[in-house]
Amino acid sequence: MAHEGFITDVPGVRVGSASNLDGKTGVTVVLVPSQGVSAGIHKGGSAPSTRQADSLEPLHIVERVHAVCLCGGSAFGLDAAGGVLRYLESQGAGFRYGNMTIPIVPSAAIFDLNFGSSALRPDAELAIKACESASDGPLQQGSVGAGTGATVGKLYGVDQAMKGGLGTYAVKSSGDLTVGALVVVNAYGDITDISGNIIAGARTSPSGLELADAARLLHSGMAESRKISVENTTLAVVAVNARLDKIMACRIAAQSTVGLARVIRPFHSHVDGDLTIVLSLGDQTVDPNRISLMAAEALQGAVINAVKYADGFGIVPSWKDLIKNSNFGHGGEKHVRGS
Amino acid sequence: MAHEGFITDVPGVRVGSASNLDGKTGVTVVLVPSQGVSAGIHKGGSAPSTRQADSLEPLHIVERVHAVCLCGGSAFGLDAAGGVLRYLESQGAGFRYGNMTIPIVPSAAIFDLNFGSSALRPDAELAIKACESASDGPLQQGSVGAGTGATVGKLYGVDQAMKGGLGTYAVKSSGDLTVGALVVVNAYGDITDISGNIIAGARTSPSGLELADAARLLHSGMAESRKISVENTTLAVVAVNARLDKIMACRIAAQSTVGLARVIRPFHSHVDGDLTIVLSLGDQTVDPNRISLMAAEALQGAVINAVKYADGFGIVPSWKDLIKNSNFGHGGEKHVRGS
Repeated sequence: MAHEGFITDVPGVRVGSASNLDGKTGVTVVLVPSQGVSAGIHKGGSAPSTRQADSLEPLHIVERVHAVCLCGGSAFGLDAAGGVLRYLESQGAGFRYGNMTIPIVPSAAIFDLNFGSSALRPDAELAIKACESASDGPLQQGSVGAGTGATVGKLYGVDQAMKGGLGTYAVKSSGDLTVGALVVVNAYGDITDISGNIIAGARTSPSGLELADAARLLHSGMAESRKISVENTTLAVVAVNARLDKIMACRIAAQSTVGLARVIRPFHSHVDGDLTIVLSLGDQTVDPNRISLMAAEALQGAVINAVKYADGFGIVPSWKDLIKNSNFGHGGEKHVRGS
Repeated sequence: MAHEGFITDVPGVRVGSASNLDGKTGVTVVLVPSQGVSAGIHKGGSAPSTRQADSLEPLHIVERVHAVCLCGGSAFGLDAAGGVLRYLESQGAGFRYGNMTIPIVPSAAIFDLNFGSSALRPDAELAIKACESASDGPLQQGSVGAGTGATVGKLYGVDQAMKGGLGTYAVKSSGDLTVGALVVVNAYGDITDISGNIIAGARTSPSGLELADAARLLHSGMAESRKISVENTTLAVVAVNARLDKIMACRIAAQSTVGLARVIRPFHSHVDGDLTIVLSLGDQTVDPNRISLMAAEALQGAVINAVKYADGFGIVPSWKDLIKNSNFGHGGEKHVRGS
């Protein structure tokens, strides 16, 4: 029994986004109760850019995290995490050490310097705004927060890409089990619906709306991926109201990432910095395979939402532009049917 | 044929330190030629705190780094890396992507919030100062840069610890092979000379200079380590004028870390965030096992230098205080003989 929802449907999760619309970039923070929560990570991509993500590794001694910070601005954008640290410290949220409070804030950046201004990046002040705006209610999705400058379908680079963004989704099941997901979709690959039809992706020309179908072109050898690129990443956060230790959270992060694989094609490319973080906010004991199945479903829903709510700012087309545009149909129409 | 030297003896390496003496903290940057160098990492500790260290992982697509940033201030101090990024960007040093320059700067922090002021931490401005002061000449060692607030021998916490710091050492061999090391020694363990005699470590009381011998006490069950702590780390950088790909640089990072193990006791404890980064700055092909042996020697020399040059600021005693103090000898004197 699935329904559309928000990662904030998981009790204890608050999310705040702040955008720099001049730079077309932003920050999204996921806040949890001040004592922190157990969490794990799966880094599946070949190009992540992170700060304090060490704490999520299985062997790391720290067992609780106090927030997750997702940002644009590539490596520069990781300055935003410093704002989250300051905000949480001022709230007394963090690892207590003597009279000190050290917030544990795994943070990851997407590359959006090729969208909007490359000189304006998220900073600590923008992150503090995101923290201050955090809410446990419905969330704005699409071109907001860390998704502001996100693009998808970059077989031919951003000029022939479409707009990605921030998305969320939640899956509820019997027994008060809720699994919520939040994603920033800046993928190299095209985005499909659950039937495999492309809903946003690489286009055959910079000015047109015809979808190229990156996987088909790469598969057949009709296109080649670039050897090195740092412009792509899907960042994912899963929250569940069940008890998980770090090892199990890491396993579920790996297992639930299949939800991303179902709707991003190609996925985990050599030029994607994908990672999935799992947060545990509950006391109930639940079959981890059940959580992973629900998390995968929440993740794929969140990716589709990220694209469907996205606004291209007139820079690249969005899914909304595709379905609105009457000229759309040069081989592309079938891709949106059913989506 | 070994001699004392500096990591800057490796052609192309420049090092700059900046200290905040009010906060007793600081930053040290290792700069390399603007096109970047091949590099690898070994994370041996259970509590690292890093930013952009992803790029050094074997599977990460980025193959060259443009600097390494070491800082105090724990997770907060990683803000310093943002200053290094800005400095390098302004110099045109970084990964070129279109018209953008994205410096790859693996960064790691030590916890020194329990020494000096916990509220003053390294920031971007301090890091820019460190970059601007970078030199390829002799380096100041001890309580400077990222070593300013470093302590060692924390079996009983910082109150019974001694002063650690920043150290460097280089080993030259026939055929113009030079391996240099730079370390920030903030270890949980005691520091020994190459014969195993403690030269700085946990003391039996907050006011005295008698060394406790942490390893002996832990081994015998006469002392217990704390279950969780984030206050310890040895950060190490090795540079060599030989060609290494990332995989080999990672292997050498792991192998050469034995040099740290020889002079830090206990080493790689559950509460240390140790990591070793290897930078390759040359074209010559050299047996990697030879490089690792020389790197281990350089690392152990650098650790000993870090401690011998350290100044305790009147907060905790340093090695210099030990050897100067005529009262020193309550079971401790034998530990410094020969060191």
